[in-house]
Amino acid sequence: MERLKQKILAEGTVLSDTVLKVDAFLNHQIDPELMEDIGKEFGKRFADDGITKILTLESSGIAPAVMTGLVLQTPVIFARKRKSLTLTDHLYSASVYSFTKEETNEISISQSFISSEDTVLIVDDFLANGQAVFGLIDILEQAKATIAGIGIVIEKGFQNGGEAIRKAGYRVESLATIAELSEGNVAFKEEN
Amino acid sequence: MERLKQKILAEGTVLSDTVLKVDAFLNHQIDPELMEDIGKEFGKRFADDGITKILTLESSGIAPAVMTGLVLQTPVIFARKRKSLTLTDHLYSASVYSFTKEETNEISISQSFISSEDTVLIVDDFLANGQAVFGLIDILEQAKATIAGIGIVIEKGFQNGGEAIRKAGYRVESLATIAELSEGNVAFKEEN
Repeated sequence: MERLKQKILAEGTVLSDTVLKVDAFLNHQIDPELMEDIGKEFGKRFADDGITKILTLESSGIAPAVMTGLVLQTPVIFARKRKSLTLTDHLYSASVYSFTKEETNEISISQSFISSEDTVLIVDDFLANGQAVFGLIDILEQAKATIAGIGIVIEKGFQNGGEAIRKAGYRVESLATIAELSEGNVAFKEEN
Repeated sequence: MERLKQKILAEGTVLSDTVLKVDAFLNHQIDPELMEDIGKEFGKRFADDGITKILTLESSGIAPAVMTGLVLQTPVIFARKRKSLTLTDHLYSASVYSFTKEETNEISISQSFISSEDTVLIVDDFLANGQAVFGLIDILEQAKATIAGIGIVIEKGFQNGGEAIRKAGYRVESLATIAELSEGNVAFKEEN
């Protein structure tokens, strides 16, 4: 997705060979019009997959997921990283290790909102090691839902998450795939 | 906002005289079309206030804030409840006590994204004791930004946050104000 790549080049900051900071438009400050375009792009790619629900993870996945839900006319559920007082019983849960934050979070959703009748699109902001996506897949398997695919805003193609998820048989659509981060520069993987 | 009130009546659950659960469309599962309508309503109410940025708090504030940003054509910043590895220096921070979760969170934003040049609209999902909004106001005062007002999806009119914030001189626009929760029923405050 060309507009996204231009935004990454213009406003992303390469902090190291593995860390790309996109706090200016995705992870902290959000560009709503870019999110709308992202929603339209995911909506186009998954238009014919009979999606009934979108599942994402708080917090940075919410904006692209909600814009996708607006296009596909489906509800969006965001998995929570901690349990709240009004969300305690009847949960599907999974453990997710974050290499960025160096901690394990329990992620969970209420069993009320996803069932075996649902065909679910997972949407997330980043795909690196794939821990978050595998946690969301785990939750959907507990719910016996059909997993239509995974929509990722930015995939770090030099880390192993994307390959592992595709090898496990899932369709992954990434809007920008980074081949390499080096010397402060972003190199994108060529699209087919 | 009539559609929101109907949604609360149809899908909200009164858990006690003080707790209204709206996990079905706002706090866990999100209804994107309702969020779009909420964005349009806030956009209309603050159309002439010269808003340059919207500030919210993760996670449930993000969806209504992003839809409002889409209408007002402004970036959205969500304050984080914990510090992340890529968001450490140069923060504006405030302490916020959550009565629901019975814990104090440090909320913070990067100093990069809000300055004294900005006119900011605060958007949040709930207003009860006002702790979160006062924390966001604190952050904006540190940034010396102009505060145009506060847009709230659901105000608990029987708790003291709304009154305290209005007494402090801020404009609060709530799309649904609850007068009372009792015996499982929601009573809305009459609009002027």
